[in-house]
Amino acid sequence: MKRDKITLAHGSGGKLSQRLIEEVIYPAFGSNGGHELLDAASFTAWGKMAFTTDSFVISPLFFSGGDIGKLAACGTINDLAVSGAEPLFLSVGLIIEEGFEISKLQKILQSLANTAETAGAAVVTGDTKVVERGNADKLYINTAGIGLISPGTQLGPANIEVGDVIIVSGTMGDHGMAVLSCREGLSFETVLTSDCAALNGLVEAVSRTGSIVCMRDPTRGGLATTLCELAEQSGTVMEIIEDQVPVKPAVTLGCAMLGMDPLYLANEGKVIIIAKNQSKEKVLTAVKGHPLGSDAQIIGKVTGRDQGGAVLLETTVGAKRLLRRLEGEHLPRIC
Amino acid sequence: MKRDKITLAHGSGGKLSQRLIEEVIYPAFGSNGGHELLDAASFTAWGKMAFTTDSFVISPLFFSGGDIGKLAACGTINDLAVSGAEPLFLSVGLIIEEGFEISKLQKILQSLANTAETAGAAVVTGDTKVVERGNADKLYINTAGIGLISPGTQLGPANIEVGDVIIVSGTMGDHGMAVLSCREGLSFETVLTSDCAALNGLVEAVSRTGSIVCMRDPTRGGLATTLCELAEQSGTVMEIIEDQVPVKPAVTLGCAMLGMDPLYLANEGKVIIIAKNQSKEKVLTAVKGHPLGSDAQIIGKVTGRDQGGAVLLETTVGAKRLLRRLEGEHLPRIC
Repeated sequence: MKRDKITLAHGSGGKLSQRLIEEVIYPAFGSNGGHELLDAASFTAWGKMAFTTDSFVISPLFFSGGDIGKLAACGTINDLAVSGAEPLFLSVGLIIEEGFEISKLQKILQSLANTAETAGAAVVTGDTKVVERGNADKLYINTAGIGLISPGTQLGPANIEVGDVIIVSGTMGDHGMAVLSCREGLSFETVLTSDCAALNGLVEAVSRTGSIVCMRDPTRGGLATTLCELAEQSGTVMEIIEDQVPVKPAVTLGCAMLGMDPLYLANEGKVIIIAKNQSKEKVLTAVKGHPLGSDAQIIGKVTGRDQGGAVLLETTVGAKRLLRRLEGEHLPRIC
Repeated sequence: MKRDKITLAHGSGGKLSQRLIEEVIYPAFGSNGGHELLDAASFTAWGKMAFTTDSFVISPLFFSGGDIGKLAACGTINDLAVSGAEPLFLSVGLIIEEGFEISKLQKILQSLANTAETAGAAVVTGDTKVVERGNADKLYINTAGIGLISPGTQLGPANIEVGDVIIVSGTMGDHGMAVLSCREGLSFETVLTSDCAALNGLVEAVSRTGSIVCMRDPTRGGLATTLCELAEQSGTVMEIIEDQVPVKPAVTLGCAMLGMDPLYLANEGKVIIIAKNQSKEKVLTAVKGHPLGSDAQIIGKVTGRDQGGAVLLETTVGAKRLLRRLEGEHLPRIC
């Protein structure tokens, strides 16, 4: 492409839109699963499907461990995966600020395409809009996704019962702290990397145990907020033990420096698994058997019923405190 | 909601996000078709489905004949309809600028919900992001949609043959000129209103004739650009007659004042229908029989084969000129 920056004409629907599609967008997605990229894609479905959407407005666009493209693929793939669906098709909607470098757009779309392809999902339809300089911060991406739910899959907070155990698939807060340290120019002795990853492989491996009650990915609002939602939706009391929640030393250090709590930091490649108590070892072994689950831990259990739901944290010193949903803004544009 | 403006905390995933969902978003969509609004919605599919997405960045958000909510519903419903699918499910992704009035958001979501419901589509999943003041222009909306394609439906440019007729369902350029006059503060003797409308009812009525070869909605880039795409994709020469293209007098006047061509103005409630010549009267009668198709006209036909595709316009004075795709930016943020 001769011009190296996005202009308003790239969003006109005319000749430059066509060139952007042919020279930048098709090369990234064109060969993805053999699906032609169309205004409306078609597919044949054969059963229970899942449908989800997420927009991504993260700043900065590139961070240690990923970029907005990888994030946009993972976010929607993970929403499908934790709802028990095998991710099949993705749509990609781009909102681009005039002046954005086309080379960066190419890199981001390639990253999105690679992540989707590795996870077995095909990008099949898309849309591009361009807004004037100053009316967006470089690039926002929306992805919607369609997945196939295996027959017999019954996941959800309604199934949570007293006695169930709570497992996390790895360390908490990596994504939030990686993006934050990238923004603030913080450096630690070890490089902090976002955990941004597609979870469908891990989820599939874990689901084969047949002992999963419910799954959720603790993104915005972190582990604490996601558990509060689950407790509320299931009408249960959940108790977790602070010492058993895996957190990387650099994340703990960063949180101490910034007065933040890793339980409220976003994750983009972790899953909370609620499983039957009698199968907890089998489930934990399945999670740990997957490369993305090697730091998995049982962090607590469901201890009682409460209509409004409650999450209790047993702290390092043995005290118990009530965890609440995230209040205030915390970290804007973390995903 | 006590606070009357969107804050960054409304996008945090925490307590205020929950309140926004419960007090603003659920009331708009909660009862839509009885579907619960979930992170990932599920549905049972039973055949060939269509999947599409569009982002909407129109400025201003409210215009004569509609608003961004109505537009976001119509745009995706129409993409599904012209691909031969019955629109079933929509997702809604919001990117909101900090400081946006919640009352306006409510109005827009209600408008989106009403339009979807009238068209028989259910909003089943969604996402909300908030960006800092100055990093978006008030509100951008992405919708993705899933539709059911009737068995046996075979629509597309590959089916276009020499002899087929070209029909438009009504006047051209209403949306583009309505938005433009709203922006520029132009006034005409009659109020210009956007044609923004869900076309699935009209398309269904027309499809029943069994004589449709291909359909397309001439949005960004207008009739001329859309026909150029169709001619190129089908490898045909299309000839249309300027005098037969319906254009409202106020649109003609506005175009003359502003040096614009109605053939390149966006439409949001019109469809181009390529139909078999021997059934043209039956198809035209079907279009005209629908309230959205009363101004329909046969505007030309497919006259030959050409690998690169070509669209010829016979002008009012009898000359023929080649129509090209829209070049340059024309009207940014028209949808």
